[in-house]
Amino acid sequence: MASTWVPDVSPDSPFSLANIPFGIISTVDNVAPHAATAIGSHVLDLKVLCSDPRVAQLLSSSPRPPRPVGKEIDEFPAPAPAPAPDYAAIFSQPTLNAFAALGRPAHRFVRAALQDLLSAETRHPEVLRDNEELRRRALVRDSAEVTMHLPMAIGDYTDFYAGYHHAHAVGSMFRGPQHALQPNYTHLPVGYHGRASSIVVSGTGVRRPRGQILLDGEPTAAPSRRLDFELELGCLIATPNALGEPVAVADAEDRVFGYVLLNDWSARDVQTWEYVPLGPFNSKNFASTVSPWVVLADALEPFRAGAIENATLLQDYLKEGRKDSVFDIELEVDLETPSGDVTTISTTSSKFLLWSFPQMIAHHTLGGCPMRTGDLLGSGTISGPGPNQSGSLLEMSDGGKKDVLLYGMDVRRFLRDGDTVTMRGSCGKSGERVGFGSCVGRILPPK
Amino acid sequence: MASTWVPDVSPDSPFSLANIPFGIISTVDNVAPHAATAIGSHVLDLKVLCSDPRVAQLLSSSPRPPRPVGKEIDEFPAPAPAPAPDYAAIFSQPTLNAFAALGRPAHRFVRAALQDLLSAETRHPEVLRDNEELRRRALVRDSAEVTMHLPMAIGDYTDFYAGYHHAHAVGSMFRGPQHALQPNYTHLPVGYHGRASSIVVSGTGVRRPRGQILLDGEPTAAPSRRLDFELELGCLIATPNALGEPVAVADAEDRVFGYVLLNDWSARDVQTWEYVPLGPFNSKNFASTVSPWVVLADALEPFRAGAIENATLLQDYLKEGRKDSVFDIELEVDLETPSGDVTTISTTSSKFLLWSFPQMIAHHTLGGCPMRTGDLLGSGTISGPGPNQSGSLLEMSDGGKKDVLLYGMDVRRFLRDGDTVTMRGSCGKSGERVGFGSCVGRILPPK
Repeated sequence: MASTWVPDVSPDSPFSLANIPFGIISTVDNVAPHAATAIGSHVLDLKVLCSDPRVAQLLSSSPRPPRPVGKEIDEFPAPAPAPAPDYAAIFSQPTLNAFAALGRPAHRFVRAALQDLLSAETRHPEVLRDNEELRRRALVRDSAEVTMHLPMAIGDYTDFYAGYHHAHAVGSMFRGPQHALQPNYTHLPVGYHGRASSIVVSGTGVRRPRGQILLDGEPTAAPSRRLDFELELGCLIATPNALGEPVAVADAEDRVFGYVLLNDWSARDVQTWEYVPLGPFNSKNFASTVSPWVVLADALEPFRAGAIENATLLQDYLKEGRKDSVFDIELEVDLETPSGDVTTISTTSSKFLLWSFPQMIAHHTLGGCPMRTGDLLGSGTISGPGPNQSGSLLEMSDGGKKDVLLYGMDVRRFLRDGDTVTMRGSCGKSGERVGFGSCVGRILPPK
Repeated sequence: MASTWVPDVSPDSPFSLANIPFGIISTVDNVAPHAATAIGSHVLDLKVLCSDPRVAQLLSSSPRPPRPVGKEIDEFPAPAPAPAPDYAAIFSQPTLNAFAALGRPAHRFVRAALQDLLSAETRHPEVLRDNEELRRRALVRDSAEVTMHLPMAIGDYTDFYAGYHHAHAVGSMFRGPQHALQPNYTHLPVGYHGRASSIVVSGTGVRRPRGQILLDGEPTAAPSRRLDFELELGCLIATPNALGEPVAVADAEDRVFGYVLLNDWSARDVQTWEYVPLGPFNSKNFASTVSPWVVLADALEPFRAGAIENATLLQDYLKEGRKDSVFDIELEVDLETPSGDVTTISTTSSKFLLWSFPQMIAHHTLGGCPMRTGDLLGSGTISGPGPNQSGSLLEMSDGGKKDVLLYGMDVRRFLRDGDTVTMRGSCGKSGERVGFGSCVGRILPPK
């Protein structure tokens, strides 16, 4: 891949020319949230960029959006083709939903156009590379100058449980290794509905929740004492399916807009007491943090890998035509204590899933449940098989029974007030890295 | 209460002058969904009504909306007071969210103004009662001429499990009467997150979902054979709380916009196989039906009743200052078979709850989970203690083991294709009835 003319792009940056993620920013000069992309530590303002007539002209051959869900195909007279997307308007929106709803061909087209404009060998040097005036208005030199916002309006959030090693480790803890996995686990992607209203963007403080917990066996309303993180990959939906219309597993990949890192904060003591018989509730709904930049599904295509082998004979609706149905993204979790010591407590990969996102989508819609643009699916906690590969403190501390050792002679079993959890994920070789930037949350004391 | 000048209002109508519910309609002449109220079998178009300058003048003394969530109270200089709500614009919206967000004082004010305009002894006869031109444009004589739409944009849907007799009956079925209720049941309002995208308005067909079920012990993807309804009361949120800010139980009532009937359709065989360890998922997310008219919280005030006594010592955050924390709404469920025979299979009351909605809200927000305008809380299935008071076929058929007898020599254990389930709820005496109209869904064959 060509290199970029943008200066000072570190070869270690997850925002190489091979990435081109999408996010929502505001700046001191433009406080209304709108779309941008990242290149190295620079941010390219897409609202400003696409308002330029030459850019608008370049994008005028964009693929048209798909027909609205629920419209009959044999309408007569045939409807007029949709107009070309107005990218200046689309990227002026406070969320990426309008862009996502255009569908994958349009995402691919825009990503390729931006890669060209940012390439040292751009076919259109006059548009941006050699256009000092537009560069000055559109290219923010330091990402610290922008405020990142939640990238999408998320209608529904579903959390799956596809991290096999996590499910096995947690199940062993509660039921012993013989009965670690429930009978349904290898037959279907187990999942549950999460809370959309408490999804926050990286950097938002996470207040230690109060909840009902058992203290000396007595139910007590108190701040959670077993506050934990969960390392997950999040998948954002691009195009909807209608109520009653399942999405075939082979078609599910085309519904995906992109991916984010997801920290599904969990209050383990609240969960233990509340979760029978209907599942996790307040233990999970106080905050879920996502990384601010959405990495397009196309950007991750080169990093496909095989999922964990499933020996169970699957129902047809879950059978995939490919083996490499997940991504091998290197994932890391840092824990920074209030004293400032940082320890990388986990290094794992997003390939450690028993189920792929297309399988999750096919299962989720099997009964006709509609997915909408912006819906978020979480993979479930991702842990590797080895030590130091766990996606939660619950596993690292063996259910809170042993200390996790940190730099500075400190230890943790669960999170303390003032701790900061930072998740990172990237793949690809130096100079062509594709990743998420960080997904950060600091624990605030309870009120 | 005075009577209305609107002609032909049946004393049995749930839409008496004492009600004044709010809904979203469209008509042949005005296809863009907008707000209306119902009086008898008439529908009063609020977009048209409030566009009249005399009505706008009447509403100009409306209470102002609350300050946005998260704004500091000691802002300096003090912000200008919010302008009076523009009701013509608010009632032109395709949902009731903007109206709900104004808060209960505004809802109370508008309801009182509409009650006056529709009263035989109205203080402003010239505005509507004696204004043939405005009546002709705003008052639709037959509710069959309007199409009803989902009344609100529902961000998150949470389903509780507060119907004590239902929880006890179902628990007995699965664990025996000694262990019918889980240990947490009387300590906290058990609930789980539902799916917002598949909430549909009354009248929408419900396709029998496919799902993974056990057939002869083998997991099989097939249409559900144990399709059921669940009779619930739904509560819609008016004003939001910020992330990290719990709502006190004493303040929760002020957050409520109003109530709807809710049929939380359930595929029992899908649920049995999928629900460990994270709760119901596809068994519940294929459709949930709500009645189209939102009955304001104020309209139900006269019908307060005591909840089921809870002998457990509650945590402070769940302690209510009042005994009459639920409503005694008469609820009925009709089952119509494809042959047209209709049997009322359940007659019960919305008072059969162990937890009130303020308690549910206080618990839901204990850890800081934000509620947003339009969020829906379901009570959980409501069953009475006696025979013919069950809110689901699962209970009536004792877990599918015995026939429920219907007119026309027919029987059911679960729903068949072509069956129609109709729920109704109302309270108050003849001529002053307050109710929901019906919540209807017909089972369509699987695809």
